[in-house]
Amino acid sequence: MKYGRFEANGQSAYGIVEGDSIREISSAPFEEYSETGAVHRLDAVRLLAPVSRPGKILAMALNYGSHLHGARPPSRPEPFYKTSSSVAGPGDAVVLPPDSRRVDMEAELVAVIGKSAKNVSEVDALDYVLGYTCGNDVSEREWQSGADSDVQWWRAKSSDTFSPIGPYIVTGLDPTDIRIYGRVNGVEGQTCHTSEMIFGVAEAISFISRYSTLEPGDLLFTGTSGAPPSLKPGDVTEVEIAGIGVLSNPVE
Amino acid sequence: MKYGRFEANGQSAYGIVEGDSIREISSAPFEEYSETGAVHRLDAVRLLAPVSRPGKILAMALNYGSHLHGARPPSRPEPFYKTSSSVAGPGDAVVLPPDSRRVDMEAELVAVIGKSAKNVSEVDALDYVLGYTCGNDVSEREWQSGADSDVQWWRAKSSDTFSPIGPYIVTGLDPTDIRIYGRVNGVEGQTCHTSEMIFGVAEAISFISRYSTLEPGDLLFTGTSGAPPSLKPGDVTEVEIAGIGVLSNPVE
Repeated sequence: MKYGRFEANGQSAYGIVEGDSIREISSAPFEEYSETGAVHRLDAVRLLAPVSRPGKILAMALNYGSHLHGARPPSRPEPFYKTSSSVAGPGDAVVLPPDSRRVDMEAELVAVIGKSAKNVSEVDALDYVLGYTCGNDVSEREWQSGADSDVQWWRAKSSDTFSPIGPYIVTGLDPTDIRIYGRVNGVEGQTCHTSEMIFGVAEAISFISRYSTLEPGDLLFTGTSGAPPSLKPGDVTEVEIAGIGVLSNPVE
Repeated sequence: MKYGRFEANGQSAYGIVEGDSIREISSAPFEEYSETGAVHRLDAVRLLAPVSRPGKILAMALNYGSHLHGARPPSRPEPFYKTSSSVAGPGDAVVLPPDSRRVDMEAELVAVIGKSAKNVSEVDALDYVLGYTCGNDVSEREWQSGADSDVQWWRAKSSDTFSPIGPYIVTGLDPTDIRIYGRVNGVEGQTCHTSEMIFGVAEAISFISRYSTLEPGDLLFTGTSGAPPSLKPGDVTEVEIAGIGVLSNPVE
């Protein structure tokens, strides 16, 4: 199943995408829903972030060996929080804060939680995932790790518009076998395969759920690879995952 | 005005507290509301966290000189995120995670945002505050700053139940002139006056709003003082602020 959130005639709704149409549903796909009967042409709607205000967003630090840059691999999952007011949708601008100095994109697979998860085992963890979408964990490096870095990664990772997600939530994917591409202005800057993750989606969810209950609509950004490209105004970022689509955002 | 959120007859609602009664209102006090006409005796309702699922919670690190323990005073506000699923209400248990080693309470003044705030000046910042409540920024110190600390303060500050708030949201207080008491089992462990803050509520809101839009119902924990007391199962924590009341929580 491929779910999208969209705006049509000034109203926002969720729908099920099939071919070039989207069939409206009564609520979010991680809630009880039914089809409303309304059908739209996909090219006649505006796609929105597939979760508008997630209850929380966790993101994995240091989760690909190629992104460690000499740091010791973590001995346990190392999540951090991004805040839901930083979410942007497909096509929305990523706005560089006026005093930012180096802002990078980070192309990531994002798991969307479908059911409340507390103390779940690794074996069961994927049952709590509704599906997956593309994410860009936009990051200001001076605030994150520069000489005068902040105590915690609040504005480094969660300035307004720093969490683009979309275009769709897709169910039934195997999170251990997905290739991710990150591009700036059409030029490939990052590529990785989710089999390279240090902690997989199931391990991360199981570990997090020992401390913090995951709830329907919560998001898990699963980490980035390599040396992600930096951004300047006028750039266009793309995160592409086969089976989900391309998340594209202009930079302002 | 003193607002409370409560449960009566299996339903939750907000109300305005006056004397020993609470007059129900139609929605949250940071939304448009009207009085519904229903009135309850205060001792016949169960008080709930005054914001159940804030869009975000920011908390100030290193904001009282007495809590720096030799660290250099920060040159700018140093917020971090707590997550909304860690909120607990008055009387709710603070649950120590099984593998936690040292969990402290932190008695704090909490500002409740009333209006959307982006790029607001220090002079205007307090206009965006609806009111204030008591907060306990429960903190696991090994995960926060032990020898094998986490990369970021996710479970250290946001394990389930680590953010008790309440009992009321009170408007019209001067956030520069408030005394805060933190007690464990009735014994005073912390006391401070908000005039000792390194960055006041107005400075913090103005700074944060340059990067992250503050929204109605968002919370700002304003920092803790001194050497906060540690907790063990069976303890009872109290955060008291004159004019707001006492936030009391058992520890499990």
